[in-house]
Amino acid sequence: MSTYVAGVDLGGTHVSAGVMDGNGRLLSRVFREIRLEESASSIIVEIIGALKEAVAQSAIPLSSIRGAGIGLPGNLDSEKGLCRFSPNLDWHDVQIRDPIQEALQRSVFILNDVRSATLGEFHFGAGKGLRHFVCLAIGTGIGGGIISNGELVLGGSESAGEIGHMTIYPDGPPCNCGNMGCLEALAAGPGIARRAREALAKGCTSTMNALVASPDEISARVVSEAAQQGDPLAQEILRETGIILGIGLSTVITTVNPERIAIGGRVALAGELLLEPAREEVRRRARMVPENFTEIVPAALGEDAGLIGAATLALLKCR
Amino acid sequence: MSTYVAGVDLGGTHVSAGVMDGNGRLLSRVFREIRLEESASSIIVEIIGALKEAVAQSAIPLSSIRGAGIGLPGNLDSEKGLCRFSPNLDWHDVQIRDPIQEALQRSVFILNDVRSATLGEFHFGAGKGLRHFVCLAIGTGIGGGIISNGELVLGGSESAGEIGHMTIYPDGPPCNCGNMGCLEALAAGPGIARRAREALAKGCTSTMNALVASPDEISARVVSEAAQQGDPLAQEILRETGIILGIGLSTVITTVNPERIAIGGRVALAGELLLEPAREEVRRRARMVPENFTEIVPAALGEDAGLIGAATLALLKCR
Repeated sequence: MSTYVAGVDLGGTHVSAGVMDGNGRLLSRVFREIRLEESASSIIVEIIGALKEAVAQSAIPLSSIRGAGIGLPGNLDSEKGLCRFSPNLDWHDVQIRDPIQEALQRSVFILNDVRSATLGEFHFGAGKGLRHFVCLAIGTGIGGGIISNGELVLGGSESAGEIGHMTIYPDGPPCNCGNMGCLEALAAGPGIARRAREALAKGCTSTMNALVASPDEISARVVSEAAQQGDPLAQEILRETGIILGIGLSTVITTVNPERIAIGGRVALAGELLLEPAREEVRRRARMVPENFTEIVPAALGEDAGLIGAATLALLKCR
Repeated sequence: MSTYVAGVDLGGTHVSAGVMDGNGRLLSRVFREIRLEESASSIIVEIIGALKEAVAQSAIPLSSIRGAGIGLPGNLDSEKGLCRFSPNLDWHDVQIRDPIQEALQRSVFILNDVRSATLGEFHFGAGKGLRHFVCLAIGTGIGGGIISNGELVLGGSESAGEIGHMTIYPDGPPCNCGNMGCLEALAAGPGIARRAREALAKGCTSTMNALVASPDEISARVVSEAAQQGDPLAQEILRETGIILGIGLSTVITTVNPERIAIGGRVALAGELLLEPAREEVRRRARMVPENFTEIVPAALGEDAGLIGAATLALLKCR
């Protein structure tokens, strides 16, 4: 008999829901936009609606769905089903699990969105078949998740895996978290864009100027596009970003010694222009681990990682 | 019926062995000095001798000892009972488990020495009763161990917990491992001594000069002694060391989110002069975890940590 579970990936601007089988295959996918000004209860209504729609689309009866997992950005108390704090959603102490559980009459579990994506990649993506795995998502921020001996490392307050907030340069630029010189402040989208704008302001020549109407519009995506087209300045900025990433990954490798690290998120679409300098920096710095022991690869599940991961959470909890 | 196990703590200059009961109480303790030039097989003979002596002293018959754990410095393959590489012992691919197992006719297990000490502190010392714990030993180097959800984090090549080799200042001084700016290069004994000598060479006044015959003799212990006696320069050097330690601990906290971090090793005898600035730095930097969530405390087991931890390994394996 097949196993079916549901998953939800909640972001600052969208909710996706889907039904997944026990092999990590999504049978349905529902996407809804949400507005930042919506209240938590209105977003929860959206989630319930999206879940019901995903179940209907899958043609699996709700009674055959074992449970649902919800991945959302922020710090959670998963035992209590509570989102303690989410800067992206502007939530404080929101009970998210219980109303969904009541509406569906199925078991519901919650997990941080990048930890969900890590579970997804570990069971059905870039980490399949391993025991020790780390996943990073690089976008407007940097989130992460750590698997040790097959188990997700949650930590004492469910904050483990906040790899984006490790200090790379102690006197570096301020980070949104309040620290200085975090990996996120240097190597996430806004940090990449800032370094590109700074270089252009110094008068460096680049095709990036031609891609935007004003320097304010320079984004990590513009840098990545220009780099793919061969622009030397854009390539150099990605190389610098890769080196910074490599410093952070060396510390991750030295601390938790994964077999593989998968890098996802929109910034990671820059691919080898980012990953190759990161690998080189890891070879220079992670000297307590056999050379090239840790593979550094692109994530495999793309934008489905969070959704598949949230459903995987339900799969693991409802075994 | 009581449970008894044996433990061995092997260092570059000594071997200690002991018998422990199921409550972490050492019933006997044997200490033998070893010489660096001794061959691996001669050291193994010493270990077997020390273990037999410890069993005899404990008055527990060998047949009642469930097994023995061996903690030793270096990178191990614990499945195979092999020490892959130990700079301290100058060992390469030494089979350490099998000859001891054969001589005693008991099950023998091996583990890195600081990971052993972490197990000891977790079960019977500063980490007792917790689920998420980190232990650091600061001496001539810095080693560490991580416990996540009650389990030791070993990693894919048994290198997890090498916290001393995380990068603090990417352009910092070279470390013995080959990296630059490692926590160990900055905050272990030789790094502290180096910074003290540099300050004295600049002409800073300090009572440290009076404690040694020549500047070459300045050690972390001298710095610590002078600081305890109120010397401002020595106190400042320990404060700087605490800040560097705090940068590293912030990354540990952000990555694995322990409930408590225990700091042991000889350098940690400097106590609050080191720990208070570290805590302050953690409050500034570890912003993704609730403030003051992670306690930073001195280790509890002192020089017995490695021995108790090695015996604890046997306790866990022979349940």
